[in-house]
Amino acid sequence: MADEIERKFLVTGDGWRQGQPQRLVQGYLNRDPERCVRVRIADDSGFLTVKGKTIGIRRAEFEYSIPLADAEHLLTLCDGPIIDKQRYRIPAGELCWEVDEFTGANAGLVVAEIELSSEHQSFLRPEWLGTEVSNDARYYNSNLSKHPFSEWQAEQD
Amino acid sequence: MADEIERKFLVTGDGWRQGQPQRLVQGYLNRDPERCVRVRIADDSGFLTVKGKTIGIRRAEFEYSIPLADAEHLLTLCDGPIIDKQRYRIPAGELCWEVDEFTGANAGLVVAEIELSSEHQSFLRPEWLGTEVSNDARYYNSNLSKHPFSEWQAEQD
Repeated sequence: MADEIERKFLVTGDGWRQGQPQRLVQGYLNRDPERCVRVRIADDSGFLTVKGKTIGIRRAEFEYSIPLADAEHLLTLCDGPIIDKQRYRIPAGELCWEVDEFTGANAGLVVAEIELSSEHQSFLRPEWLGTEVSNDARYYNSNLSKHPFSEWQAEQD
Repeated sequence: MADEIERKFLVTGDGWRQGQPQRLVQGYLNRDPERCVRVRIADDSGFLTVKGKTIGIRRAEFEYSIPLADAEHLLTLCDGPIIDKQRYRIPAGELCWEVDEFTGANAGLVVAEIELSSEHQSFLRPEWLGTEVSNDARYYNSNLSKHPFSEWQAEQD
């Protein structure tokens, strides 16, 4: 078990588009934010992850490596559409930005996350960093699988 | 991944009470029968298990061993009461009966299960075997955690 302490931001421009991204395909066996269960395929590796309730920006996270064939089958059991995204990793000293460029129903959305070791840890802000959305539940991947970004835009039109 | 093919029966008498039982404590991160996610502690071992939809008496099952400390924390994330039972294993040729004697809110309920390698496999019926309940969803452990046996009896009075 690890506590997950993350801050999440929108981005501007495309200075974050560096190096070779990793493809992440993921779905949810439970979207409930108090007991979220995620199936993920990262390139050719499978993972099953359980996350507890978010308190502030801290969240209990349990991640287990599982066979790829299991992950492929488990994705077919998931509730609702599957999320598909490219993840860029941008080192920042001892930390690392993870920038997710979504495709499919969430195309157009790009989100940057940084994992911290304490809630008050400081970090440098790259010039492409935009508005913080750490506490905006719409940006949870579990919600993006149910209410994708393309639908938000339609609602705003 | 393994397909789980099980038949489930009530029992009569207590001829099934043989050998040392194993204590099983379990809860559910999702009770949805199409994507059931179970956390279990069996003696001192932790497990995370996903089960798909039951088709007839066949069900896809994915089980992963996890650290005991993780399982203990994950039980606190579960939805609703925890199931606590003693499991007796009774060898029957190449097969094995698993007889679960429930405690707590399900006290009084005893259920025998046998796992088969095909749906039409035959097996010997011990003298303590009662009515078959394979297709009665009330006896799913995921449902027993929400609607325990003690409440059924109260409803029948």
